[in-house]
Amino acid sequence: MTFVVAYQCTICHKVFSPDARYTCDECGEDGILDVIYDYEAMKTVVTKTYFKTQTRQDIFRYLPLMSVDATHIDKTLRVGMTPLYKAHHLEQKFNIDALYIKDEGVNPSASLKDRASVVAVLKALEYDHQTIACSSTGNAASSLAAHAARLGLKSVIFVPKRAPFGKLRQMIAYGARVLQVDGDYKAAYRLSKAAIDKYGWYNRNAAINPHMVEGKKTVAYELYEDLGYSVPDWVVVSVGDGCTIAGLYKGFYDLKMLGLINTVPKLLGVQSTGCNPFVTSFQTGHPLKETEEDTLADSIAVGKPRNPVKGMNAVHASNGAFIEVSDQAILASMRLLGKTEGLFGEPAGVTSLAGLIEALSNNIIKQTDTVVLLMTGNGLKDPKNAEKALGKPTIIPEAMDKLNNVLDESEDTDE
Amino acid sequence: MTFVVAYQCTICHKVFSPDARYTCDECGEDGILDVIYDYEAMKTVVTKTYFKTQTRQDIFRYLPLMSVDATHIDKTLRVGMTPLYKAHHLEQKFNIDALYIKDEGVNPSASLKDRASVVAVLKALEYDHQTIACSSTGNAASSLAAHAARLGLKSVIFVPKRAPFGKLRQMIAYGARVLQVDGDYKAAYRLSKAAIDKYGWYNRNAAINPHMVEGKKTVAYELYEDLGYSVPDWVVVSVGDGCTIAGLYKGFYDLKMLGLINTVPKLLGVQSTGCNPFVTSFQTGHPLKETEEDTLADSIAVGKPRNPVKGMNAVHASNGAFIEVSDQAILASMRLLGKTEGLFGEPAGVTSLAGLIEALSNNIIKQTDTVVLLMTGNGLKDPKNAEKALGKPTIIPEAMDKLNNVLDESEDTDE
Repeated sequence: MTFVVAYQCTICHKVFSPDARYTCDECGEDGILDVIYDYEAMKTVVTKTYFKTQTRQDIFRYLPLMSVDATHIDKTLRVGMTPLYKAHHLEQKFNIDALYIKDEGVNPSASLKDRASVVAVLKALEYDHQTIACSSTGNAASSLAAHAARLGLKSVIFVPKRAPFGKLRQMIAYGARVLQVDGDYKAAYRLSKAAIDKYGWYNRNAAINPHMVEGKKTVAYELYEDLGYSVPDWVVVSVGDGCTIAGLYKGFYDLKMLGLINTVPKLLGVQSTGCNPFVTSFQTGHPLKETEEDTLADSIAVGKPRNPVKGMNAVHASNGAFIEVSDQAILASMRLLGKTEGLFGEPAGVTSLAGLIEALSNNIIKQTDTVVLLMTGNGLKDPKNAEKALGKPTIIPEAMDKLNNVLDESEDTDE
Repeated sequence: MTFVVAYQCTICHKVFSPDARYTCDECGEDGILDVIYDYEAMKTVVTKTYFKTQTRQDIFRYLPLMSVDATHIDKTLRVGMTPLYKAHHLEQKFNIDALYIKDEGVNPSASLKDRASVVAVLKALEYDHQTIACSSTGNAASSLAAHAARLGLKSVIFVPKRAPFGKLRQMIAYGARVLQVDGDYKAAYRLSKAAIDKYGWYNRNAAINPHMVEGKKTVAYELYEDLGYSVPDWVVVSVGDGCTIAGLYKGFYDLKMLGLINTVPKLLGVQSTGCNPFVTSFQTGHPLKETEEDTLADSIAVGKPRNPVKGMNAVHASNGAFIEVSDQAILASMRLLGKTEGLFGEPAGVTSLAGLIEALSNNIIKQTDTVVLLMTGNGLKDPKNAEKALGKPTIIPEAMDKLNNVLDESEDTDE
């Protein structure tokens, strides 16, 4: 916790001491706190040389930039340092100069949420909790269950009725107490809040808990390192509660405050047309208004975003944009990304590619820009929607003559 | 290809020049070739210092020990350097001094097979193929499809009818031509062989292609590095065709020939009671006999192993053993591993833990031994069998009074 000096309410800007836990006592649940660091002091430690000399292959190589202490970091599942791929085939297809994809699906529970959950369980231990709870559309929950098991904590999880098959299996496998609420994410969130208040569990809900953004921000540091200590013009990511895009912004903001980069990259937040509260607010300038949760991209099916201020600020302060794409475009992106680059993302994971395509056609992103897409979760998380996108193979008998009929001419003799 | 000097038939020991492709011309398809290196020359390059000074974070940090050339290695998906976890909770539970689990489920297509498939696509490019094919119970196929897409190759894949849901979705997502054969793995294998013969595609079938073991062996080098340039007493892994355990052996054998370790660790090969050809042969001393493929652990549902000589040799030469466990024990291990360590494996992935438990009770493995379990694939690959192991959560209404009834006393107030 070396460089954390305070917490500050994102609404009223009231400052709290570093032992604050969740939200602002005056603004209530909407008063999400931001963790404030002493960048002048941090600068004496965190230089470009600091980054160049780290050998640790997980997010705790960034410990001095984080809000968690070192006591248990060697016992955790290994999070982060995910690969950044140059997307050669997609660059050609869309005539883009420099396109990269960061595969967050190879984290231990197969999503970016591991960056936050590992911090959550460490904070729970710091605060002497035995049980940690959250509500989640699926990924935060399965991730939390994994990290809790690894560190010997109990986890209680609230998910909406439509949480995908793979994610549910993960939570149960990791031994969580899974409570599948007969309703949408909003219902799961409300019940989790009431239960956490009653039972006193540690609260991993992403907006409420200021440390979740501090875990997610590490993805920005990795991009800075991967790109040779520079940043791209754009980073594209799907948006649900707004915490992940807030994390991205915070990471780049830290680097800027440390004098390591001049400009925070423009952030493009992508939502589904069926659940687009950030997009509507961005376009109209009106406050966020609750929407339906009508998208198959379950991770961003968040009708009432829990981190609206940080999420919106990330886009405005970076000179970025919010954009919406149809579920059909999301499914098409799943096929395209798999076929061209060998990367299989869940619907919300490939939404960034759908957003890029839309942003290119709108001239929001230019072909000369350097662009990073975050693929936030593995396609194996949600095999049923993958089937929608991809179809099923035909079953054929073991017979060469039948095979010859099935194979078209393009599959002809190789040599 | 610097240190490859020849290929040698594992049956008749006939030596072939380094431009050989598949199997021995005299022994036919059973005459699997082994890649032979000049260890005296290799020793001048590959020392302990060599390992200590590598910075590359994928299996190509071991390039001088491999049989593939460097031309395209910077374009591949990132394979290997998977985490090795100390299993603190399982050590306590079983009173074992030192137990580790290597999580191969965080490879790009979520299984150990990526180590072989990435080599396969590089060899296909070396040999100027545009199409690469294999038959597979599922993981080799989904892995091949991913790596082929990434390098711009076409892939044709033969899977048995019962290939799991998640794996099938992967293959299709990666744009492979998927041929689901109406039969078992043996049927898929036969049809793939006939088709590859006819169409001239590059053959990634794991036994036939000698380079697959050379990719898989990198897992042994990683263990050597992870354990501080030493090796454990035992490495435990599930066995299907026999190629993975052969790869483990080859990796340790290389290290021994280079003078870096004194002894190859004992290898414990684990099969299901419903499909146990190696176990039966090991126990009786008779040649391998084809069995049914009656196990839910699809990755090791191999009734007629394609790499019997290398697979059996790995166990005999390491003074190891083959052992069998029931499908029920496999499902129980899935629950145990998730709950205690936060690791979720597919059935064949957690079979190593079931094998350890059996081997401890048989005194094959002692509590004072240092043991590594390979978790070969991610649990998300096969969500339907995960459901069998884990059950489903109950759906509850959004109501605190109902919640209070559901939560038992152990979940009581935390503070």
